[in-house]
Amino acid sequence: MKDAPIDHIAIVVADLDASLALYTQTLGFSVVYREIVADQGVETVGLRSGDAVVELLRPLDPGSPVARFRGEAPSKLHHTAYRVDDLAAELARLTAAGVRLIDTEPRRGAHGNLIAFLHPRSTGGVLIELCQPAART
Amino acid sequence: MKDAPIDHIAIVVADLDASLALYTQTLGFSVVYREIVADQGVETVGLRSGDAVVELLRPLDPGSPVARFRGEAPSKLHHTAYRVDDLAAELARLTAAGVRLIDTEPRRGAHGNLIAFLHPRSTGGVLIELCQPAART
Repeated sequence: MKDAPIDHIAIVVADLDASLALYTQTLGFSVVYREIVADQGVETVGLRSGDAVVELLRPLDPGSPVARFRGEAPSKLHHTAYRVDDLAAELARLTAAGVRLIDTEPRRGAHGNLIAFLHPRSTGGVLIELCQPAART
Repeated sequence: MKDAPIDHIAIVVADLDASLALYTQTLGFSVVYREIVADQGVETVGLRSGDAVVELLRPLDPGSPVARFRGEAPSKLHHTAYRVDDLAAELARLTAAGVRLIDTEPRRGAHGNLIAFLHPRSTGGVLIELCQPAART
């Protein structure tokens, strides 16, 4: 990966409707999708930001890790996803470089994308996702 | 503003050299700039991410708000900046809409950009910057 573009940034929110009002009515972002992603335990809204997406995440379970990450804040920046052309090759390269991964192999995310998370212990505590868009898989 | 693109995301870091090694050597981002921004009290490195920038911020003063924001984490997502064409007009519009601003008028940021921060009390706790690139001012 070389100067990988931001695919999306994700913000965990307590009140999805309030955040949606802020981002759409006040800040002028358009809704691209709104859906339940059951295996990640969130309701998610994607907002168009140039050729990237601002993704709002509402945890379905208040005891889940993503909900606990938010803590007492009404909303909080959760992770950044960078777009890559060949996710499997990147994961192999990162593993060889000693990077710890949450997902050692690409898995299906929303919209048919292939995704993988790096382990925060290898990224200074910031959660980083790599994402290979469906059209390129 | 309509579907404003991400200009940059900012990550406050404790160890700038360690973070730089991660983002350049491991993740393949190129350094666009590295400089001291005295009036923001940070040393900053900009990394090319598509047509956006990932900005690493090292607080110069360990007691500053940006340093306290990081807390005990080695690094932490700090804010997202969205690119707008006419910052003064956006600030006037947001003020009229009841949004609280940290910067009620555009001010000069790094590289001659015009910038302004919205107040987190109006954005669900997430720090949002609006940025009008220098070439358009």
